[in-house]
Amino acid sequence: MKKVNLCLLGASGAVGKEMLKILEERDFPINELKLLGNKDAGKKVKFRNKEYTIEKADKKSFKNMDITLVAVGSDISKKLSPIAVKSGSVVIDNSSAFRMDKKVPLVVPEVNPEDVKKHKGIIANPNCTTIIALVALAPLHKYGKIKRIIASTYQAVSGAGKEAMEELEQQARDWAEGKKFEINAFKYQICFNLIPQIDSFDKNGYTKEELKMLNEGRKILHSPNLKVNCTCVRVPVFRSHSESITIETAKKITPKKARELLAKAKGVKVVDNPAKFQYPMPLDTTNQDLVFVGRIREDISAKNSLTLWCAGDQLRKGAATNAIQIAELVLENLKDKK
Amino acid sequence: MKKVNLCLLGASGAVGKEMLKILEERDFPINELKLLGNKDAGKKVKFRNKEYTIEKADKKSFKNMDITLVAVGSDISKKLSPIAVKSGSVVIDNSSAFRMDKKVPLVVPEVNPEDVKKHKGIIANPNCTTIIALVALAPLHKYGKIKRIIASTYQAVSGAGKEAMEELEQQARDWAEGKKFEINAFKYQICFNLIPQIDSFDKNGYTKEELKMLNEGRKILHSPNLKVNCTCVRVPVFRSHSESITIETAKKITPKKARELLAKAKGVKVVDNPAKFQYPMPLDTTNQDLVFVGRIREDISAKNSLTLWCAGDQLRKGAATNAIQIAELVLENLKDKK
Repeated sequence: MKKVNLCLLGASGAVGKEMLKILEERDFPINELKLLGNKDAGKKVKFRNKEYTIEKADKKSFKNMDITLVAVGSDISKKLSPIAVKSGSVVIDNSSAFRMDKKVPLVVPEVNPEDVKKHKGIIANPNCTTIIALVALAPLHKYGKIKRIIASTYQAVSGAGKEAMEELEQQARDWAEGKKFEINAFKYQICFNLIPQIDSFDKNGYTKEELKMLNEGRKILHSPNLKVNCTCVRVPVFRSHSESITIETAKKITPKKARELLAKAKGVKVVDNPAKFQYPMPLDTTNQDLVFVGRIREDISAKNSLTLWCAGDQLRKGAATNAIQIAELVLENLKDKK
Repeated sequence: MKKVNLCLLGASGAVGKEMLKILEERDFPINELKLLGNKDAGKKVKFRNKEYTIEKADKKSFKNMDITLVAVGSDISKKLSPIAVKSGSVVIDNSSAFRMDKKVPLVVPEVNPEDVKKHKGIIANPNCTTIIALVALAPLHKYGKIKRIIASTYQAVSGAGKEAMEELEQQARDWAEGKKFEINAFKYQICFNLIPQIDSFDKNGYTKEELKMLNEGRKILHSPNLKVNCTCVRVPVFRSHSESITIETAKKITPKKARELLAKAKGVKVVDNPAKFQYPMPLDTTNQDLVFVGRIREDISAKNSLTLWCAGDQLRKGAATNAIQIAELVLENLKDKK
């Protein structure tokens, strides 16, 4: 297999670190590896038993790079991703910077892998909550056409980055020792609390995070009339997002049919045996790539409506794994061309 | 005001203790106080600077008691509540034993206080999640008639009793010290995790807890055609339940109208200022009696549909305070009769 020159922008963040782990695990064919950062420039990082130094990113950083994985915030991505593309790199961007750009494919490999081929240099990695929901919902959409999604999320602190994970940990330690809390990464205490705000508010009273499920969901499913009502809540869990989802479909999907469809679906594990107390839980989905789906039942409040509960690792399938799966699709297409 | 002989069955549990605190706070007019228990019989408890001993409950315990507060499980309540009634006591039962009994009023004092008068000896205190939801929803129902509720809950460990609260605390301490966890009160670890099961499963895939919101909601609102789809989830929070709720109404309710109605409603505090990062959080609702309501917005996925987020103290408004408010209504009615 062709080996590529791979650049990782944001190598020391929560998602960047996870990407390195997953590149190793999946044996991604790398010729030259370049790690870029800002605050952590100069820091040494091990990859495949070799030591790399994180370099400060600048305009020349992307020269000769075939693929650039971007694991930094929107603002930096907006500045650097176009430079990487000009330098000849295919960019896979985990930020929200280009997700809704019509020229940029937004891809969940289990759902719309074919969209990768349409890229003009940048491919966007969707929002974590959207990825996890859509891995679970796409097989049901394909069968019964989802008209409306009503979702309430239970989102892990990892979605707010490394500092947020450390803050939950520190708050728990301080609490156990009877010390006063530090509150920095979040607006409020997160340990033993819930914060019903993720990202900033839109005029309509929804947060941007809540609208991502609508806008990104429509784009990924190629379903411009999809309706979505979402409520996003931060919970004191380290790194798996959970979601309580009700879908209204054009065609009725029985719970039995849903389980059948999901059992065959890529990226999904059906964990749905109430009699044995089996259902998805964030702890069980941590450090692996599948989206667990359970609590599947007919919505007793409406026709053609199904309710379920899913959970997936936010840093892996919600971010790093999905990006590297996209990189693997890019690689295949490179091969096809040659 | 007439002073009554008051009996508290389950005086040492999480709800029983809270009841004693609230009886003191609200200056409930007590002549004789009798504390009953089982495991904790013999234990001393302070109330209004006087020491009481918890007595073992038996058939003769309820003699001469005007009001009996029941804060024990269903099984014991089913056995002892009818005996208390026969002894001449009005029973206010916090368990689920009699809630759906047609002869037993099920009361949230802010919602259906008039139902208290119909009692034949027992008045049931609703499920905590139902109480908190209905305090927030009843004013909206009165104005626009709620046809359907879709709710996902974020329920504190206090709902599972004193041992469950201690278990979350202990797991956090053990975790901080790197020790192995004890898992007893719940089926799985609750610290840094979520458990999407509360109470046992029904054949339709819902848990009994989830069906309570439907059945109790219909009874309390006198709305037999109300539809409810609920998902109940245990979260690592100590004692306030939060709920993400979408309601479909016969008559459109704008967010502005909803805020207006809720601002005037008894038992509610509107906390809804996104610009200032103000919304209900479980920590803020702890140790007080109001249900906080916020994140009020028009559901962008359906007509005549409104989405909101509420939180309330499970032990107080969700259980003890509601029961004592009922006791106060009973007292008033006693006065009226004389």
